[in-house]
Amino acid sequence: MSTASTTRTRLTPQRSAELYEAVLDLLREVGYDALTMDAIAARTRSSKATLYRQWGSKPELVAKALRHNKPVGAGDIDTGSLRGDFHAMVDSTDDCQLEKDSGLIRGLAQAIHHNPDLHKALRELIMEPEINEINTLLRRAVERGEVSADNPALGFVTHMLFGAFFARLMIDDRAPDRSYLSDYLDAVVLPALGV
Amino acid sequence: MSTASTTRTRLTPQRSAELYEAVLDLLREVGYDALTMDAIAARTRSSKATLYRQWGSKPELVAKALRHNKPVGAGDIDTGSLRGDFHAMVDSTDDCQLEKDSGLIRGLAQAIHHNPDLHKALRELIMEPEINEINTLLRRAVERGEVSADNPALGFVTHMLFGAFFARLMIDDRAPDRSYLSDYLDAVVLPALGV
Repeated sequence: MSTASTTRTRLTPQRSAELYEAVLDLLREVGYDALTMDAIAARTRSSKATLYRQWGSKPELVAKALRHNKPVGAGDIDTGSLRGDFHAMVDSTDDCQLEKDSGLIRGLAQAIHHNPDLHKALRELIMEPEINEINTLLRRAVERGEVSADNPALGFVTHMLFGAFFARLMIDDRAPDRSYLSDYLDAVVLPALGV
Repeated sequence: MSTASTTRTRLTPQRSAELYEAVLDLLREVGYDALTMDAIAARTRSSKATLYRQWGSKPELVAKALRHNKPVGAGDIDTGSLRGDFHAMVDSTDDCQLEKDSGLIRGLAQAIHHNPDLHKALRELIMEPEINEINTLLRRAVERGEVSADNPALGFVTHMLFGAFFARLMIDDRAPDRSYLSDYLDAVVLPALGV
């Protein structure tokens, strides 16, 4: 996807971080469809040419901004038990971050469907790495004998986790907080896995 | 909420059904925010005055159209086992209906957050009746001794069910079909409840 020439100037990490923050702020404020490269350029006092040179397209820029937003990957977690790993995953975030993530997810729910490029970028940059990390935790749990390798819930763990998030937004119109997610792990996810 | 006078003309059930269908078609096509009473009036060749007289407001009209769309309530289901009841609930719909419902849910995900009146109407007319019906099935299961009364998953059943729906849309960009929902019941919902 990248059309970078060999002569392009790299942005500093700090400048990139500022741009990503601005993109996410705009995404929460106006949603994906109303988010334009012009608005991003204006908000960050940069040129559209720079944005396109650096990121190629709006879906790619948005997906990279979202990935930048993810501080800790579940793949680094290894507490020795699946229960410990899942709770460490929830503990690695905070309620303020979850609130912000909720605003982003709302803004993307319809856009994903109408923008295949966005869905592809989100899948490659956000969902697949996260699913792979969760699968790493699960594989270790199977190897330790905590979860039976043929437990059918293994195929639904990401659906359970994302689903808990969305359901809280849609049913209760509230951002899920750590306490809700932690209770959901103990009441639903771990029992379904037989842990 | 209703401001109907005693002299208003009742629409025939058939005419109401036509109006509801048109509202849902528009909702899937343009989303909630872009859906105007003008557009509904034009599409259904009725007057805006009639729409307001009959339904009071856009959120109320949309919520009633969604409720009209729900053919069978889970409350009528009583197969003698929770597994049977849940599967009968899934079997009472069809994949075409689920596909249509998915379009509606996508169109409402962001709107709910920005339109408290819409969320209130959806809660009263759609969510609470559905939650009550699911709770009826669960209460019977507890009375039969199938589910322990203090099982913590009892508080998350609607979140599990709606969550499975949303997760399929967001992760896989696919409408959930009966086969997916049925597998989810057997792999996640029933084991979490200890059934």
